[in-house]
Amino acid sequence: MTRWKLTIEYDGSGFSGWQRQPHAPSVQAALEAAVLAFCGETVHVQGCGRTDAGVHALGQVAHVDIARPTNAKQVRDAINYYLAKKPVAVLQAHAVDETFHARFSARRRTYCYKIINRIAPLTFDKGRVTHIIRPLTLTPMQQGAAQLIGSHDFSTFRAQHCQAASPLKTMDAAQVQQQGDHFAFHFAARSFLYHQVRNMVGSLLLLGNGQWSLEKFAAAFAAKDRRQGGPTAPAQGLYFVGVDY
Amino acid sequence: MTRWKLTIEYDGSGFSGWQRQPHAPSVQAALEAAVLAFCGETVHVQGCGRTDAGVHALGQVAHVDIARPTNAKQVRDAINYYLAKKPVAVLQAHAVDETFHARFSARRRTYCYKIINRIAPLTFDKGRVTHIIRPLTLTPMQQGAAQLIGSHDFSTFRAQHCQAASPLKTMDAAQVQQQGDHFAFHFAARSFLYHQVRNMVGSLLLLGNGQWSLEKFAAAFAAKDRRQGGPTAPAQGLYFVGVDY
Repeated sequence: MTRWKLTIEYDGSGFSGWQRQPHAPSVQAALEAAVLAFCGETVHVQGCGRTDAGVHALGQVAHVDIARPTNAKQVRDAINYYLAKKPVAVLQAHAVDETFHARFSARRRTYCYKIINRIAPLTFDKGRVTHIIRPLTLTPMQQGAAQLIGSHDFSTFRAQHCQAASPLKTMDAAQVQQQGDHFAFHFAARSFLYHQVRNMVGSLLLLGNGQWSLEKFAAAFAAKDRRQGGPTAPAQGLYFVGVDY
Repeated sequence: MTRWKLTIEYDGSGFSGWQRQPHAPSVQAALEAAVLAFCGETVHVQGCGRTDAGVHALGQVAHVDIARPTNAKQVRDAINYYLAKKPVAVLQAHAVDETFHARFSARRRTYCYKIINRIAPLTFDKGRVTHIIRPLTLTPMQQGAAQLIGSHDFSTFRAQHCQAASPLKTMDAAQVQQQGDHFAFHFAARSFLYHQVRNMVGSLLLLGNGQWSLEKFAAAFAAKDRRQGGPTAPAQGLYFVGVDY
């Protein structure tokens, strides 16, 4: 039995999310079906983090135990072969120690949220970014993001159904970049609350479009109350970028 | 009657190309149908350049004459409205002088060719880049591209069915960039021969994968003979980036 660490890219548009579900297509089930087709083993593919319906990944990490003797190249290529035509790809496979756990060993997770800010409808990026027509200004969003860095109670950005034991999290990075009409929000932390990135972005966008002042943003954050936060930004702009172990 | 200059983005995947054809979906016909729906006028939308089936545009430029009194915002928004669900968008509309001609007034056209160089199948970028598995090396491709700059006889990179009067063209820019496993080739010239960009890229890739030496590339270019050139790179990696007037 060997434990394999998989680095996975997927377009979340057509999936009900990462997690296996009885009657809906999930990334996890697609990978487990591919492993079954490859080596005849019914496996559990353990992801680093569950992504919601429509959320994408550039570097989701998962582990899976396979009994069949094989090698990293074959694991990657065979799973990709049996995933054929689904928008999921194993970028890398590495043999790891059995103490490695994709979720519990993670030290740092990185997310990116992508926005195109223009009047014209989207062509290439439909379903892969959030389209915002109302003009956004970079600086206030950068200033708001800076307030998020460090250890805080993130209750204002925590979804109602979040199962985390505590709303206290440490944000290692929170940056906003602009290239023409493309905006990208980058966040890094050991772990995140449920919907935390989408909720933080939803509030930062209120700074960017002028609806909120920085003082209002700070007050909402300090209130530790989800009802004081902005809306949850749509799933389609969110990318799980990578994990450090 | 007002002449409108339109800047247009499209995903060429589902189109038989820019040019109107009797029984196949074209970008030109989609735009003409949208103008007809908007103002009841049967128009000719004149593009700066015809793109082949599968070729994309980030900044194709076209002009169209519309009798109905209107304004730039309405032209852009109404055409986009009637284009609904097709992966074509008018980014900008500007009223121009009747002497403006999208094709004949163009002073400089810019193209980009995108490649992802990795073993794993593509997810997000399927149909929007060329997928190359065999490893590519940047430097020889940059050195080959540098040979293309300036005024030359480009017969080696000219498609058999090219209707240009002369194979002499002046390449203002020819650059290759790498970011991780993404390669982008950038070209700028007043005009290009038919399939010139795809043919130049096809030969540069032979430098990148080690099949050709720089001397072999130079000899093929100097031969002024299409049969000495490399293969034509696939349409799906090519983007018409923009036009200067």
